[in-house]
Amino acid sequence: MDLIDTLNWRYAVKKYDEQKVPKKKIDQILKAISLTATSAGLQPYRLFVINNEQVRWQLARDSFNAQITEASHLIAFAAFETITKEQITEFIAFMAKERGLPETTLDSYKSSLEQHILARTDHENFIWSSQQAYIALGTGMIAAANAEVDATPMEGFNPEKLDRLLNLREKGLKSVLLLALGYRDAEKDFLANQKKVRLPLKELVTHID
Amino acid sequence: MDLIDTLNWRYAVKKYDEQKVPKKKIDQILKAISLTATSAGLQPYRLFVINNEQVRWQLARDSFNAQITEASHLIAFAAFETITKEQITEFIAFMAKERGLPETTLDSYKSSLEQHILARTDHENFIWSSQQAYIALGTGMIAAANAEVDATPMEGFNPEKLDRLLNLREKGLKSVLLLALGYRDAEKDFLANQKKVRLPLKELVTHID
Repeated sequence: MDLIDTLNWRYAVKKYDEQKVPKKKIDQILKAISLTATSAGLQPYRLFVINNEQVRWQLARDSFNAQITEASHLIAFAAFETITKEQITEFIAFMAKERGLPETTLDSYKSSLEQHILARTDHENFIWSSQQAYIALGTGMIAAANAEVDATPMEGFNPEKLDRLLNLREKGLKSVLLLALGYRDAEKDFLANQKKVRLPLKELVTHID
Repeated sequence: MDLIDTLNWRYAVKKYDEQKVPKKKIDQILKAISLTATSAGLQPYRLFVINNEQVRWQLARDSFNAQITEASHLIAFAAFETITKEQITEFIAFMAKERGLPETTLDSYKSSLEQHILARTDHENFIWSSQQAYIALGTGMIAAANAEVDATPMEGFNPEKLDRLLNLREKGLKSVLLLALGYRDAEKDFLANQKKVRLPLKELVTHID
């Protein structure tokens, strides 16, 4: 499928059937997410593939999104509450190792990261980390559609509850997004055959000449 | 190209050559962005394709990103400062029209949007709108790579200055992101042949069984 067709095929599925997504496709989607663009290369978030039925049921109880339990797979995106100097140091060491460079060649890159990131408040860094997770969510949705897997991005859940259920705060993380994956039940999903509604380009885009 | 190859091919280009991206490709990328997933379908952001050299030069003066002037095209993403009741009403009317439905069939959807969105502070709504713009940025980067167009996503610019240069505040918008588009100068770009550094999947992803 051409990318425009892929994007048109995708919609936020409301009703899934019971088919399971093969592991190979889930791995492909996770791989794509891992390659997503991320500010400075930092990937300031982590993914949790929640197969545990108890956790999914607990989470669904507080949400209007039945897809949390009904979809084949559920991925949570959690962003770092803040970015520490140690995280930057580790990241630079990892980059140097991966690129086969002496760490000192990355000294000025490291200072500039420290200067930008450590000057921000924890809240600002968390917003920024969560914004990076949104890019990853977008990649995940395109990767799913590309593999003909349906998806539902969800902001409507109780993040504090998920943080407790997965002990995320101990890891310095806060959950920000969910992505359900599975196969649409086109007969029972009221949205399956509705027209995708998007602003015409001339309203969305202005050319400044 | 397969999606994983496309994502591997993409990197944040530092040095562009002088080739211009054909209009047809720019239009394809903008079309893809317009089809991006967006919470509740609201698309709470606008795009500005900045061809005006004076605006680009002014913006580049305050930034370490020379791509602002050197790339073939520059797209700014601006998010709504807040979401008003009127915007929700207009959106619902537009959706009803596009889907050929009487507006009353969308009454409960409208109430639920109002309930969620209008209960938030302006600042919270702006953060949310900007997060939606990050999804769109991600789609734009994939669409560019898919069309073999290079890109640079940029947070490092002076958004207040751009808001003034484009009179964005009068439109209720604040700029949040830039995306440069063009063609890499692989000989002069130090990053062109560096390995993409990403965490191994087992560090990025945890399976909760």
